[in-house]
Amino acid sequence: MELINIEVLDTSLRDGAQGEGINFSLQDKLDVVRSLDDLGLAWIEAGNPWSNPKDMEFFRQAAGLKLRHAKLCAFGATRKKGNKAAEDPAVQSLLQAETEAVVIFGKSWDLHVSEVLRVSQEENLAMIAETVSFFKEKGRQVFYDAEHFFDGVKANREYALSTIKTAMEAGACRIVLCDTNGGCFPDFISQTVKEVSGFLGPFEKDTLLGIHTHNDADMASANTIAAVQAGCRHIQGTLVGFGERCGNASLAAVMPSLELKLGFRCLPPGKMEQLSEKTRTLAEIANVSLGGNMPYVGSYAFAHKGGMHADGILKSKRSFEHIDPALVGNDRHFLMSELGGRSAISELAKKVDPSLTRDHPVIAALFKKLKNLEAEGWQFEGANGSFEILVRRELGSYKPFFNIEAYRVMNEHPTGETIACSHAWVKVLVDGQEEIAAAEGAGPVNAMDGALRRALKHFYPELEKVRLIDYKVRVIDGNAATAAKVRVLISSSDGRQSWTTVGVSDDIIDASRAALADSIEFKLIKDSEQ
Amino acid sequence: MELINIEVLDTSLRDGAQGEGINFSLQDKLDVVRSLDDLGLAWIEAGNPWSNPKDMEFFRQAAGLKLRHAKLCAFGATRKKGNKAAEDPAVQSLLQAETEAVVIFGKSWDLHVSEVLRVSQEENLAMIAETVSFFKEKGRQVFYDAEHFFDGVKANREYALSTIKTAMEAGACRIVLCDTNGGCFPDFISQTVKEVSGFLGPFEKDTLLGIHTHNDADMASANTIAAVQAGCRHIQGTLVGFGERCGNASLAAVMPSLELKLGFRCLPPGKMEQLSEKTRTLAEIANVSLGGNMPYVGSYAFAHKGGMHADGILKSKRSFEHIDPALVGNDRHFLMSELGGRSAISELAKKVDPSLTRDHPVIAALFKKLKNLEAEGWQFEGANGSFEILVRRELGSYKPFFNIEAYRVMNEHPTGETIACSHAWVKVLVDGQEEIAAAEGAGPVNAMDGALRRALKHFYPELEKVRLIDYKVRVIDGNAATAAKVRVLISSSDGRQSWTTVGVSDDIIDASRAALADSIEFKLIKDSEQ
Repeated sequence: MELINIEVLDTSLRDGAQGEGINFSLQDKLDVVRSLDDLGLAWIEAGNPWSNPKDMEFFRQAAGLKLRHAKLCAFGATRKKGNKAAEDPAVQSLLQAETEAVVIFGKSWDLHVSEVLRVSQEENLAMIAETVSFFKEKGRQVFYDAEHFFDGVKANREYALSTIKTAMEAGACRIVLCDTNGGCFPDFISQTVKEVSGFLGPFEKDTLLGIHTHNDADMASANTIAAVQAGCRHIQGTLVGFGERCGNASLAAVMPSLELKLGFRCLPPGKMEQLSEKTRTLAEIANVSLGGNMPYVGSYAFAHKGGMHADGILKSKRSFEHIDPALVGNDRHFLMSELGGRSAISELAKKVDPSLTRDHPVIAALFKKLKNLEAEGWQFEGANGSFEILVRRELGSYKPFFNIEAYRVMNEHPTGETIACSHAWVKVLVDGQEEIAAAEGAGPVNAMDGALRRALKHFYPELEKVRLIDYKVRVIDGNAATAAKVRVLISSSDGRQSWTTVGVSDDIIDASRAALADSIEFKLIKDSEQ
Repeated sequence: MELINIEVLDTSLRDGAQGEGINFSLQDKLDVVRSLDDLGLAWIEAGNPWSNPKDMEFFRQAAGLKLRHAKLCAFGATRKKGNKAAEDPAVQSLLQAETEAVVIFGKSWDLHVSEVLRVSQEENLAMIAETVSFFKEKGRQVFYDAEHFFDGVKANREYALSTIKTAMEAGACRIVLCDTNGGCFPDFISQTVKEVSGFLGPFEKDTLLGIHTHNDADMASANTIAAVQAGCRHIQGTLVGFGERCGNASLAAVMPSLELKLGFRCLPPGKMEQLSEKTRTLAEIANVSLGGNMPYVGSYAFAHKGGMHADGILKSKRSFEHIDPALVGNDRHFLMSELGGRSAISELAKKVDPSLTRDHPVIAALFKKLKNLEAEGWQFEGANGSFEILVRRELGSYKPFFNIEAYRVMNEHPTGETIACSHAWVKVLVDGQEEIAAAEGAGPVNAMDGALRRALKHFYPELEKVRLIDYKVRVIDGNAATAAKVRVLISSSDGRQSWTTVGVSDDIIDASRAALADSIEFKLIKDSEQ
């Protein structure tokens, strides 16, 4: 069967960033773009340069990224009432983002025109027409987001339709129908999309009807799919599903349904198998925990607890699974493991020693060890450095380059001082030789890092070149509050390559110590092999 | 408009208990029954007495509960192949549960009959007929769950239909069509329910067609609603939505859609307003965290972050909310953020002092202060406690309950020890009186928390009741690695209410100190106002 192409736009960095608890640093944003590009999405809506000055700096830096699949677009509103589009400062800043496409949102619901914008219906149409024309004339592709379109149709069908017709006639090449409040149901979405198709069509080549849904009635996925079945060929959502209130449509939930079950194609060939990994990566960058029960990609999505089900699945896989989990890069047997099963472990371990095939006893031992570590909260996904050290230790031939014999970290806030200060000392042992060094720092981890490097550089001057490029902390079990376990991820670079290491403890200092030690160890291993 | 009655069955204690991480004690189960009864559900499927001996003891004790709305039912399979129903031990134990209704599940998918049960199609029909008849003769109402019904229809329509016809003719008064693997879509569910209605109907009085869905394709809510619109009048799910793999249909997501939007009635009058509270209670008993983004009942479900949205909602509530949150007992929240405006700040500040309107000079000053704090990495969204303290400080009338004069936190990993240890001392000043206390803890923050509480409880014994329920750490700018700023969020509870506070610093200990101090301060403010 020939699959029908669906163009996918991810708005994690724009609409997703409106979600509670979601805050991206500039570095996070660049990482998100790289991950989504890897996954093969068509468009990344990456920010609103007017409302958020940080976004403008992002667009400047993002222009230098070499993307293979995705293109970037910036998001903004129609011009303000009374302004000329060319003189509207928000329109100007959108232009300066210099993206190939711009997404312009405008009002389709008469209530919003009169109560929120407080302009006449005619002025709203002029705002849409002039803003779209302006960008079209500047050579940009214009995607028009018809905000609250479905509520608008309920309130004043004729006016809602006139807004999208205006956008289309002004040159928009995507007309995106938005269920902004997330309160509609699939039957209404389906019927309305069909009506709109008839009303606007026939479409010019390269012009697509799109859908943008929210999950306030738990219908974001169902509404997106209903819209596609009714004729939409462009879908918007966020990979993980975060977004304002109850979130946007989760692309990780929608794309496999469309591609594996309903006859549509969302991703380039071979990419759907990376869906679980990329969704977890995105959640990690956003520092949100991915619900285990998330459709398709959650860690419980193919978990079988009921005795009857587990038995059934051994007799017939189809009997208790709606799809083969491998199709979305998820796994049936190894729920606790982010790495997947033995085959995946073997694949990774082969990088250290090519003889480590799936049935090698070291792989069996590693598998068991990983299960135990994961039960304690360790997670090696993304922590390639720590995983490689773990493999080497399991091989038995491994001799560490150093040991941390002891450390002490102190945080003080003495009477009369306005800021706290941290200092640390660390004692290391290298080839039977001890070295102690001390440092102060911005916070206890920074102080320990300084002391550790100072102690080691007597033995390994090449460590001068290593710098830490990222530091992340995740509380594993929030319920235990300040006694909860924490997972620390540290990314390091020596200018040529970068690697990530992990540490877990109920003591954030000790978790950081473990990740720091692995980070330095990994660098020394790599240098010794050159 | 006359609402059409829908009979609701909650299976949190049976299918829900198959979810990963869900384990109910006997006391938990009794508490769940009480909560669901309070909410006014019609039926509670409370366990499988054969597969789980604890469930039998539960049914013995549950018989003594005085329920006002709900009735209990027990769940079990059709008799084993070759057995007589009356002599089948599983059937016997189901009988001994002595519930008014029993739920019998049987096979509708020919694949399961041949591959999992490994019996002939005729024997499967006999197993269904004899088991249903047996309970009917014993005076029980029999609900028949047609497991994998929709997959069965796809594979062998005629056989699937014959299984439910058999159950109906044997006396089942509920025929419940199950999407056990959760992989179907609403259009197919709708069409199939209509066909089944025609095939089985007309129904006798008190006989209902039912629907039971799972969320593997994120369609559980949409499929349930599609089935009701196609003719089902009995729905099954779990209030919170937990259950095997991706979970069951969440009744908290489905019931408000049906009752507030689609013309059906699920709960007795006045009960929908308890939905948010009861769903949180159930999550609390099950010890799962209720996703903030959960439709209708989540804590972010009516949270507004974007400046434009927050501004819009004050102009017209309907404009950015699909329903009034009060209808489901939820609240509207405004999140503070770089994206939010003065209107949102004023809305929050009014809780402290109603005179703080949008144009009040204190609001202007707060707005400026927030901008500066946010530039330093502070985020008050969700940190209602810290925000309220900030407002009070800005009002000028505020006198803190205590000051932390000094602290010292030490982390040690001495030579020869296998684990690190943390200890702390804190000196506080209350009304000119100093107090010093020390504590050790699991990690430095836990140690400081212990010392601070110990020092303060001399002055404020009511702090005994406060416990920390969540602790989150976010690295704000990962690029600065271990010298990066961190934001700490702490949620606390005194058993009656909960609140969240925030601290930011490049020193995680000092950020935690700030959030801890605000947390305690907030509690003391609230107590002083009672």
